[in-house]
Amino acid sequence: MAGSIFGKNFSISTWGESHGKAIGVVIDGVPAGLPLSEEDLAIYLNRRRPGSNAYGTKRNEADAPEILSGIFEGKTTGTPISIMIRNTSQISRDYSNIASVYRPGHADYTFDEKYGFRDYRGGGRSSGRETIGRVAAGAIACKILKELGIGVTAFVRAIGPYTAKGDVFTQEHINASPLYLPDEEASAQAENYLKECMANKNSSGGIVECIVTGMPAGIGEPVFDKLDARLAYALMSIGAVKAVEIGDGVAVSQYVGSENNDCFYMNDGVIEKKTNHSGGILGGMSDGSNIILRAHFKPTPSIAQSQNTVTNTHEDTTIEIHGRHDPIIVPRAVVVVESMAAITILDLLIENMSSRVSYLNEFYQK
Amino acid sequence: MAGSIFGKNFSISTWGESHGKAIGVVIDGVPAGLPLSEEDLAIYLNRRRPGSNAYGTKRNEADAPEILSGIFEGKTTGTPISIMIRNTSQISRDYSNIASVYRPGHADYTFDEKYGFRDYRGGGRSSGRETIGRVAAGAIACKILKELGIGVTAFVRAIGPYTAKGDVFTQEHINASPLYLPDEEASAQAENYLKECMANKNSSGGIVECIVTGMPAGIGEPVFDKLDARLAYALMSIGAVKAVEIGDGVAVSQYVGSENNDCFYMNDGVIEKKTNHSGGILGGMSDGSNIILRAHFKPTPSIAQSQNTVTNTHEDTTIEIHGRHDPIIVPRAVVVVESMAAITILDLLIENMSSRVSYLNEFYQK
Amino acid sequence: MAGSIFGKNFSISTWGESHGKAIGVVIDGVPAGLPLSEEDLAIYLNRRRPGSNAYGTKRNEADAPEILSGIFEGKTTGTPISIMIRNTSQISRDYSNIASVYRPGHADYTFDEKYGFRDYRGGGRSSGRETIGRVAAGAIACKILKELGIGVTAFVRAIGPYTAKGDVFTQEHINASPLYLPDEEASAQAENYLKECMANKNSSGGIVECIVTGMPAGIGEPVFDKLDARLAYALMSIGAVKAVEIGDGVAVSQYVGSENNDCFYMNDGVIEKKTNHSGGILGGMSDGSNIILRAHFKPTPSIAQSQNTVTNTHEDTTIEIHGRHDPIIVPRAVVVVESMAAITILDLLIENMSSRVSYLNEFYQK
Amino acid sequence: MAGSIFGKNFSISTWGESHGKAIGVVIDGVPAGLPLSEEDLAIYLNRRRPGSNAYGTKRNEADAPEILSGIFEGKTTGTPISIMIRNTSQISRDYSNIASVYRPGHADYTFDEKYGFRDYRGGGRSSGRETIGRVAAGAIACKILKELGIGVTAFVRAIGPYTAKGDVFTQEHINASPLYLPDEEASAQAENYLKECMANKNSSGGIVECIVTGMPAGIGEPVFDKLDARLAYALMSIGAVKAVEIGDGVAVSQYVGSENNDCFYMNDGVIEKKTNHSGGILGGMSDGSNIILRAHFKPTPSIAQSQNTVTNTHEDTTIEIHGRHDPIIVPRAVVVVESMAAITILDLLIENMSSRVSYLNEFYQK
Repeated sequence: MAGSIFGKNFSISTWGESHGKAIGVVIDGVPAGLPLSEEDLAIYLNRRRPGSNAYGTKRNEADAPEILSGIFEGKTTGTPISIMIRNTSQISRDYSNIASVYRPGHADYTFDEKYGFRDYRGGGRSSGRETIGRVAAGAIACKILKELGIGVTAFVRAIGPYTAKGDVFTQEHINASPLYLPDEEASAQAENYLKECMANKNSSGGIVECIVTGMPAGIGEPVFDKLDARLAYALMSIGAVKAVEIGDGVAVSQYVGSENNDCFYMNDGVIEKKTNHSGGILGGMSDGSNIILRAHFKPTPSIAQSQNTVTNTHEDTTIEIHGRHDPIIVPRAVVVVESMAAITILDLLIENMSSRVSYLNEFYQK
Repeated sequence: MAGSIFGKNFSISTWGESHGKAIGVVIDGVPAGLPLSEEDLAIYLNRRRPGSNAYGTKRNEADAPEILSGIFEGKTTGTPISIMIRNTSQISRDYSNIASVYRPGHADYTFDEKYGFRDYRGGGRSSGRETIGRVAAGAIACKILKELGIGVTAFVRAIGPYTAKGDVFTQEHINASPLYLPDEEASAQAENYLKECMANKNSSGGIVECIVTGMPAGIGEPVFDKLDARLAYALMSIGAVKAVEIGDGVAVSQYVGSENNDCFYMNDGVIEKKTNHSGGILGGMSDGSNIILRAHFKPTPSIAQSQNTVTNTHEDTTIEIHGRHDPIIVPRAVVVVESMAAITILDLLIENMSSRVSYLNEFYQK
Repeated sequence: MAGSIFGKNFSISTWGESHGKAIGVVIDGVPAGLPLSEEDLAIYLNRRRPGSNAYGTKRNEADAPEILSGIFEGKTTGTPISIMIRNTSQISRDYSNIASVYRPGHADYTFDEKYGFRDYRGGGRSSGRETIGRVAAGAIACKILKELGIGVTAFVRAIGPYTAKGDVFTQEHINASPLYLPDEEASAQAENYLKECMANKNSSGGIVECIVTGMPAGIGEPVFDKLDARLAYALMSIGAVKAVEIGDGVAVSQYVGSENNDCFYMNDGVIEKKTNHSGGILGGMSDGSNIILRAHFKPTPSIAQSQNTVTNTHEDTTIEIHGRHDPIIVPRAVVVVESMAAITILDLLIENMSSRVSYLNEFYQK
Repeated sequence: MAGSIFGKNFSISTWGESHGKAIGVVIDGVPAGLPLSEEDLAIYLNRRRPGSNAYGTKRNEADAPEILSGIFEGKTTGTPISIMIRNTSQISRDYSNIASVYRPGHADYTFDEKYGFRDYRGGGRSSGRETIGRVAAGAIACKILKELGIGVTAFVRAIGPYTAKGDVFTQEHINASPLYLPDEEASAQAENYLKECMANKNSSGGIVECIVTGMPAGIGEPVFDKLDARLAYALMSIGAVKAVEIGDGVAVSQYVGSENNDCFYMNDGVIEKKTNHSGGILGGMSDGSNIILRAHFKPTPSIAQSQNTVTNTHEDTTIEIHGRHDPIIVPRAVVVVESMAAITILDLLIENMSSRVSYLNEFYQK
């Protein structure tokens, strides 16, 4: 009965509801000595902030993070870092109509079944605002990974039927699209598609892809805490994700072995692979290639169309959901995917430090 | 540095290598009072046993499980259950050629990178035999779930391009196919396809689907230990799985909201859903519908074709992998998927028992 | 590298330093439906508050708790409860002299060795203020236990050489002593002793005892998460505790078996014990008698006498520690012991709910 | 409902009952590359073996360990190590009389209360044989610690009223006493005392002390996984332990601060302490001095005297416990204490490797 803690070594404990006083995270296991400021966090939080693009909710909050502990003289001390973001924009009456009606595609019914009642204001704990804690922690994980030469970059691979072509994108390329969909034509088509969705009182799904560069080989702990298993766990825990793929993902079930295997070869003294169907993971451990992940998001369940549903007193009814809702959450989810990937990878990088007796010897006898 | 333990309440700790003395599992957290015999386990283990179909490896071992602890007078005592299966058929010379060559698509290279060396005999810890411990534990989880009215049934949804049509299958229907692919025509086509693969010294991927019936609503622990997140973790930890889908899975990224939302309605006093795109999970908790999962397996990486690769002394070379290898592991993986799903669900069913203060009151004040 | 999370089912994650912005705790796993207010917490926090008796530090803070999440309409929702207490009274210059000198008996040196530097203001994370999070969480655990008929009561058993006689004390009896030492004569002697300590620029140790009534039998998880093992873990994690005893504790090593064994007998249809040397625990599980615990606290290490020590640049020096320090922390630690005991017991009560298959059957088939 | 797993990084999962087929342990997280043989384990197991001294049970089993996994070419591979010891000497009829009677001081009653029934043969899971798995794992932990220059040495400090004087003992000194009580006079007195106990159909308690040398400073994870807290947890989980002390332990509650504080000083460029009242731990982290621990064991509850008790059908009765029982378990517990201390320390040494960002940098950028 305790599912809001994630990670074994770099552990995050998130808390908060959409319309509670605040939302936040406590991170236990941040190594000491990392320069860290509230600005470092704000850069990441701004990327998921509502209002950051035309297709996001109109709720406009500063989401200014306050670091309450774990920092001294500008550096992490090794003690838990507590981060709080006040909820400033909640308008409870917006949501009063959902107190007694179960919105299709939402967690209203399941929360009531589990706990007997729920904080219905703005989705309570199942609101997208829950991801704020993840992103604040992800900003820290990303900063540490960057010091180790590891880059984590996510972007929108597809919105509805419109897909970005290509394999290599720069951050500039990604940011050039208001949807973080790094393909000019597809991005423009997706924008039109979203406008159409909104006109139809509808919403859209999409795909976020994440690429991790600079990974050392051997990261991941067989046989359960494999790198791919932990990444699937992390990504599937994000609201609205219904599928996770590693490398070629679902396509591999139709491959034959000779198509799917990535051949090794020597490249200037270094072992490399000719292809990367595996998405950088073999046997649950990183193989030194780029890690490639994809998370498939369902369309926002809140739509203004009339839908059939039931009340919490078990009567048939209909509902139209108005108010400030994203017609798509995918662009704002990019930084959430990036964050969860970074947290997972850092957690396993730490765990790997004790994989050989010789490493303990070097550490303690230097 | 410890990734071979899975589950919080019903915890399994698996151990063993393909060519070690034995392979097994310790299960901590089995509730007391369950009638349990070695025959209960053997039924499940036989389903993953090599030689159970024409497309499995020729290695033929009895895989007879020995229960070493945790049972008294035919019932579980609440103490850890240790299960051991002796490895009886290993022929080490079969594998001697792979000691120094990294097989494409295998974990040879990543094991060496992580640990400095590896038990190369038969794949060592990354062999498919590692799943024996999972299945033995899964047999116990399934038996408990059955007592609670919960059924877990997996089958082969597709092999290469051949896909089973339909949504409802009986166990008889599934067992009627030598490939556990419950569609007479598709199964026959898949058989031909696999023969062709073998003739071409190649291998095939496929899809295992799993359906869980009888689930109570509200199971799963937001926001990280959601039912779907834990299931993705469990399934992605199975060797060769490259994608996991819940419900409509990857398809949802192309849906609009009105297509994807499952409308609630009252059915004879009970809240039900008109459709089940969500795969029985909303907000990370079971919604009372069937849970639907799919795991995508890559083709067996061991193929007899010549492949380019490198040695562990960093020289280019080629390899042809002969010996007893499945051209497809998917049919044998059916019971592994079933096992991991059952273990995960039981773990979360236990966790849910303390979700309300009133439950504690009823338990301790009766 | 993550030691600030305690408990498996009722998990507390504490954070904060003495002179940081705030201090607090996130509690994951609070069952839903418990009426809870900030007043419930304040009652407990006031008991550890500085200035609550003549022998506590002069630092006088309101320590008003703010509940930031997990409560809706006055009841717990089952989601994490975040509690924050602002630090309002810190005077950083008070502590500036300890930045470069290692105080004997304190964690200054070990923090520097572990993390490379430390937040030296007011002891940073090793300050007694760290226990605020524990007490806030303990208040919640105690409230749930009370609903289950379980009482947790701690008091001061001894200060220096002055020991409370007797075995049964009421809360009134305990509160009648300004030192929470429920023996009028011993309490008066201890007061004089503490005045003498202060006059001598010295400090005193003491013993806190805790009695848990109303425990059902069978609580505790052999063989590692035994009730006594978890309680020892919990109590020894409180700063300044150097020994933990269960029941007759250290005395048992001098007993013979016939003295130590508690004989069972039937008392009006109920199994009871003639004596309780075991302190209510047999084989690591509660035996239905009162649980009896004792924690031995060392004297406050901050004393105004001159002491030899070293600097962080490795030079011999001396230090006299002035400022607001308790000559004894034992009276203020009473509620901390109570809190840690309650958290531990609730955690194991939850875990015990799944100890038999029949319990799962009753729960899920009702 | 899962308490048989201990340790976060070096995790042991023990299993087995006194009269089951076998008893054992799975260790997950053993770093790769450690030379390890069954002989390494046997040396430790022989120290706890029955019949190793005149005061141990007459049950004489070889307790030959079989390593089933995790070793290749004589070295650990980084995968789980499974160790099994067959139970060969069980004589079930010896224990048949205890099936329906609750022995005072034993776990019979509490097991029945928790699980509804129990394996009553030889104490089942609560038998001293349960410690075999701990000792096998401890042998591995000790071997790794030895490579790091850390020595863990336990001995008998006292039996009944007879106490070893002195502070520094060699292993030879300890082994010179048949009771591992390194004080010639006290050992002889203790032998007489035990003979007297046996003549009186009685048993004796005692104290095991453990000293850890060569500890680096900074080991332990505030604020809950402090070194002392984890050690108390580990030691209190050993059957029959009723108190745990660190350093001066219970004595500190009667000290004043100036007596208890250990002054630092520079010794040839190294920070040392003049005294070691703290037992080598400050603020929950090692301070570079020797770690000093004491565990207080109750007398063996099985005595041949007639004792009042009850049956499992709730009737008053009496019991005399004959058969092979140790009049004292303390000498055989020495190696168990050593093992649990070593497992705990190694676990925290691993955890400490990621305490600074600079350590990650050195590790991943070398």
